[in-house]
Amino acid sequence: MITSLTNSIVRHVTLLQAREKSRREEGLYVIEGVRMYSEVPLERLDGVYVTEEFLGGVSQETNERLAQTGYELVTEEVMKKMSDTQTPQGILCVVRTVSHELKEILEGGSLFCILDGLQDPGNLGTVFRSAEAAGASGVIMSRDTVSIYNPKSVRSTMGTLFRMPFAYVDDLCGAIEDMRGLGGIRTYASALDGSSAYTEFDYSGPTAFVIGNEGGGVTKAVRDAADERIFIPMEGEVESLNAAIAASVLLYESHRQRSR
Amino acid sequence: MITSLTNSIVRHVTLLQAREKSRREEGLYVIEGVRMYSEVPLERLDGVYVTEEFLGGVSQETNERLAQTGYELVTEEVMKKMSDTQTPQGILCVVRTVSHELKEILEGGSLFCILDGLQDPGNLGTVFRSAEAAGASGVIMSRDTVSIYNPKSVRSTMGTLFRMPFAYVDDLCGAIEDMRGLGGIRTYASALDGSSAYTEFDYSGPTAFVIGNEGGGVTKAVRDAADERIFIPMEGEVESLNAAIAASVLLYESHRQRSR
Repeated sequence: MITSLTNSIVRHVTLLQAREKSRREEGLYVIEGVRMYSEVPLERLDGVYVTEEFLGGVSQETNERLAQTGYELVTEEVMKKMSDTQTPQGILCVVRTVSHELKEILEGGSLFCILDGLQDPGNLGTVFRSAEAAGASGVIMSRDTVSIYNPKSVRSTMGTLFRMPFAYVDDLCGAIEDMRGLGGIRTYASALDGSSAYTEFDYSGPTAFVIGNEGGGVTKAVRDAADERIFIPMEGEVESLNAAIAASVLLYESHRQRSR
Repeated sequence: MITSLTNSIVRHVTLLQAREKSRREEGLYVIEGVRMYSEVPLERLDGVYVTEEFLGGVSQETNERLAQTGYELVTEEVMKKMSDTQTPQGILCVVRTVSHELKEILEGGSLFCILDGLQDPGNLGTVFRSAEAAGASGVIMSRDTVSIYNPKSVRSTMGTLFRMPFAYVDDLCGAIEDMRGLGGIRTYASALDGSSAYTEFDYSGPTAFVIGNEGGGVTKAVRDAADERIFIPMEGEVESLNAAIAASVLLYESHRQRSR
């Protein structure tokens, strides 16, 4: 049982929670809660930490999984220290990151989401969740997009993180060209000054939507690289939609068209 | 200039930020940032507090508004204490709440959003923002829905709070009946076990969408009171969509249909 707040594992987990640099260097990140634990592929698990109170109330299913994965007991105080949330759920895991090549992501898919500098971790996680729900098969992000391994991003994905292939790329314009060349994917950049409403296109073929940064939108170079610049009409005095909302409205319009 | 952290105004603002009870009893809440300040109707302003640093960098427009509204100087330290954010923008206002009767909200409108126990303040604010953008003319909420005057809700509305009529009601089922009777409004409850996909209906007539609590969804009584129970199809292993996403997908489907 880990009881000391200065234990090296505790210090390690705290670093992984706080610093993207540590996560990147070690290829590790942290997930919390029984739901994420029940969905994480076993081969990616690096460590499982639970409190006695948590163990006292687990379901049979979780019990069996714990027997399979093994775990280490920690005190409530240690869990509180390691957790990124105010009220820890009593189970926390260190998980290995996975990486995908763009080419691999494109294979077989026909709906994608491209993120150009999204900054809010909650928005990012929510985009992942909506993308899976709308039938997308990959998320491609510019290098300056917030990390999907940020604790808040991880939480907002609600498990989609384990299932949705994604890649961070240095050259988003190049990636858009590759997508056009390799997969015949048409790219639609969401922009406030887009030339057509999003409802005017047919998204039943291979499609990718580009969503930009919360403040500045899609960068000019990426807007230019895209096949079309589309806008979501807005009534009233609203200046823009939340980025995750914009992504979801577009992805679901494509889902609607494909379901007809 | 307010310099003391124990000044009665500072204590008052801190209470309004932290406690819904104080906001309700006094009919006051707090907004932050120059954008919210520029959009708040003047007659609702109760107090404006700015730092010297903020004053040094304001636009001419803000300067004129400050001359109109008046303001009180506070130190950086006092602003930090009064603010709900990590990095205060240097301007914070106390604003009077407004209340609307259901009947008043329904007049002239033909698209509404009903919230049944939504708990996340960020989600609530985002729903307001999307609702205005999609052309909705009111938000009706069950009494147990999180407060729109919560600092996080206020922030997420991005100004829609000042323009969107809304009401908290004790009896949401009764409100749905009133909406049907007074405005001929058809109500569609979003439910995971809904009987039809949301794309199967015509929302060009008077329409209200009901979105439920993040964990439990729409309560059974409200599902029963609604005219239809609809679901948003989900691919992959996603169990549910974020509540603000679900609301926005539905509201924008109605917007799409009305724009044809």
